[in-house]
Formats: sequence, C-alpha cells, structure tokens
Amino acid sequence: MADQPPAFLLDLLKHHEEPPPAERPHVTLTFAQSIDAKIAGAGGRQLILSGKESMVMTHWMRTMHDGILVGIGTALNDDPQLNVRHLAPPSGSGPHHLPRPIIIDTHLGLLPTCKLLANFQNGTGRRPWIVCSSISPEVEEDKQQRKGMLEEAGAKIIELPLSPRSSPPGYLPVPLILKALRDLGVCSLMVEGGARIIASFLSEPVVDALIVTIAPVLVGDAGVGYQSPTFLSNNGELKARFKDVHTESFGKDTVVAFEALP
Amino acid sequence: MADQPPAFLLDLLKHHEEPPPAERPHVTLTFAQSIDAKIAGAGGRQLILSGKESMVMTHWMRTMHDGILVGIGTALNDDPQLNVRHLAPPSGSGPHHLPRPIIIDTHLGLLPTCKLLANFQNGTGRRPWIVCSSISPEVEEDKQQRKGMLEEAGAKIIELPLSPRSSPPGYLPVPLILKALRDLGVCSLMVEGGARIIASFLSEPVVDALIVTIAPVLVGDAGVGYQSPTFLSNNGELKARFKDVHTESFGKDTVVAFEALP
Repeated sequence: MADQPPAFLLDLLKHHEEPPPAERPHVTLTFAQSIDAKIAGAGGRQLILSGKESMVMTHWMRTMHDGILVGIGTALNDDPQLNVRHLAPPSGSGPHHLPRPIIIDTHLGLLPTCKLLANFQNGTGRRPWIVCSSISPEVEEDKQQRKGMLEEAGAKIIELPLSPRSSPPGYLPVPLILKALRDLGVCSLMVEGGARIIASFLSEPVVDALIVTIAPVLVGDAGVGYQSPTFLSNNGELKARFKDVHTESFGKDTVVAFEALP
Repeated sequence: MADQPPAFLLDLLKHHEEPPPAERPHVTLTFAQSIDAKIAGAGGRQLILSGKESMVMTHWMRTMHDGILVGIGTALNDDPQLNVRHLAPPSGSGPHHLPRPIIIDTHLGLLPTCKLLANFQNGTGRRPWIVCSSISPEVEEDKQQRKGMLEEAGAKIIELPLSPRSSPPGYLPVPLILKALRDLGVCSLMVEGGARIIASFLSEPVVDALIVTIAPVLVGDAGVGYQSPTFLSNNGELKARFKDVHTESFGKDTVVAFEALP
C-alpha cells in the first residue's frame, strides 16, 4: 500500500496551501455512487458500493482535510466512524491526521451511543461537532435535554439560527454553516453526504473540488439518488460549473475528479 | 485508428458465435450518460455527452450487430443515422457491416423526412424497419395514411398486436418485439435508447450484455434519466442481475461493460 495520497489528490487539493476565503473553508464534496447514480439503498439504508481500493483513496482524502461533514441521515443510517482505518500507519512520524467529524443535525437526533462519540470516548477519534438550529430552552425542553446528553457523551454543539427564510425551509443554510466552521478554524472541509447534504452543497457555489467514485453496479429505482440543480442553459446546452480534471480506476471503481470553474 | 473493434467488445460479444434463443436475438443494451445518470437534456432534447473516442467504440459495436433499435422519442429528438461514420473504411475487403435500423414507434409518429429514410433513399443506409401496433384501417385512417407515407419513403412497417394487458399500458411488450425480430432473422440486436426503451429492456430478463458510457459531466435534474427496476433484495442487499466484466477509459469517458448473470 502506498504511503502517501494518490497523486491526483495531491494535485487537485493543492489549493489547500492557500488560505481559504474569509467566509468558508476550502470545500471538497465527495461520494460513492452506482452507475445509475444511487448512493444508498431503499429508505437511505447503507449500501457498500465502493471497493477496498477506492475506500483507501477516500481515507487518504480524509487525511487531507481539517473537517469531515455528514448529515444526520447518514449518521443514523450508517453510524460511520469517518476515520482512516483503511490506511496502514505511516512509517516514522506520528499517526495520520484525523479530520474533525462534523454532523449537520438540525433537530439533534444523533444518538449519544453512536460510534463517533464512542471513538472519541475511547481515544480513537476526535471530538465530534454537531451543528443544530438554535435552541429556546424554555420551549424546547426535549431538545435541550438531548443537547445535554450529547455534550455529556463528548460532543461539541454548535447552534445556528434557523431563519424563517431558510431555503429549503427547515434546513440550515449551507453558507451559514460554512461561515461558522471557518470562524472555528476549519480551513478545509470534506463533505461526504448523504443525499440531502449533496443536494444542498451542489446548489451553492461553494464546492472547490468534486470527487465521485462510481461502482460498477446498478441499484435501481428503489435506491436513493441525489438531487442536483440543473447544469443546462436556457437553450439546452450544457453549462458546466465543474471541469473534469482526472479519471482513474481504483480496483473495479472509477473515480472522477472535478474542480470548480471560476 | 484501430481497424478492428476494441478487444473487450470482441470478448463480451463472443456469444454471438452461438445461435440466439428461439424467442429473441442476442441483446446488447447500451447508452451514454452523465455522472448523474442523465441521458438527455430537458424534455428529451439531445445532449452530446460522449466524446469522439467512445463514439468510435459505439460505432464498432454497431458493426457487430444485425440490428440497432431506438425508440420513437430518440428518433424524433435526435434524428439519428445509426451508422458507422466515425470508423475509417476497412482496408482491403468491403465496407463495414451496417446494422439494420429498427424504430419502435407504436403510433407511427416517425417523419418520412428523417435521416434514416433519407440515407436509405440515397444508398448510404439500410432500409429502416418500423415496429408499430396493429392498425385497423377502417378506424385509424390517419395512421394507415402515415404508414403509406413511411412505406413510400422506404420503411418496412412491422405491425404487432397491442394487448389490453400490455404493461405498461400502451407499450408494445419487449418479448413480443424481440420474437418478431428474431423471426425476421435478426440474431443480434443492439438497443441504444432512449429513456423508455432502456427502462423497458432493463425490466425484462432479455439483456445479455450491458455497456454504459459515462461522460465526466453533471447534467442536473432538468435532464432526463432512465427508470430502472430495483436490484435490491427484500433485506436491502444488492441482488445484481449483471456482472461487471470490464471498465476502460475511452478519451475522457469511462465505459463499463456487464454481462447478464445466469
């Protein structure tokens, strides 16, 4: 196994050497999908689509970011660890850099028994941050209580105002989340899914790099896909927001990397 | 430019040396899609997704089949030629084998001025076959008249009974179409789309080889995707009907080939 990230990642993410904008971290959006663009099974149930080789690539990518973000759907369905366990320990120097786990969880539905918190407790993971909408302790006793339990389990809770103008309604706006993370010192953020998070990030001009792993399977329409804004102009032509820069096979999977067009 | 088909095609389609089943030709389903599994623009409008290199691959594939089938939507939106114009003429022997164009056009909406008929008239294409639902000349005068005009332009019209039990209603059943083509001597059939044809063929256990060309672009939700039956079992696991056998880059595109599992 190689002891450094794949060359295309080093190249694609070399903008990380520059400071990010004031209002957000550098953002890498990445997910694994089937040929027919499904990212999960029926009802969001986890499907292991990608093979070992592309998982190793993804774990290298994790070592190259300050934070790693998933939505509450993925956190509940997959109970992920978001660590780099598929990488051999580096020779010589200390352990691999572990990104900070960040969960977007507007209503604080994460379970205090999840693996991310268990790994923090047993010293094998970093303290997870949970981003939720602002709590009014008087009228949201239950949520306040859940906050207390998650904090007790080790989570840091970040409350952000849910504006009545939020679009879509009830969702924390992506720019607000990114500004909060940037202010907390996250300079590079890897966004892993699921479907709603992918749709939200594709809908904002905040993604610097997009990396899609395509597994050679068909899932069919019972699976969960991701919504996407249109990239067609009014006259029907393709109006790309991303430029494809690299395609590479990792085992049986194909990884396609894009960078944002200016 | 190579003067024979890509090696993976020769291997994937070597079952063409065996006679097909009695009830259908050997069937190859193939289409080009974006990363997000769109095959056309808004309203089915044609999008040129694949690059030259994978188009050449597709044209080689055409030389390896007796017939090439598209739906009326594709025929109207794209006005395709379904020929092998991207291939250099073979050295020595005669021209490349041209597959028979076959259009599934239940209500006979094809225009007599389409390129497929023009090419037949000017000697650069084979006579197109048009498959429609049976006509009652007394009650369907318009359709009978359209049939006459298409025949005058050179088309051969194949009428098949549209059963009241057809599923989905109003569609000619795929097995019926395949049996008719087999009886007419089509031993190998390449099916190119569009969306409804892909969905119909994926829903029946009749596809021997599946070849998907993936272009490194996102089209977004205004584009047209294809429906697919589910390939998930009741307990949520992947229950593949196809086995991936080969992945190869053609220019910027990735071509993934599958064969049907027994």
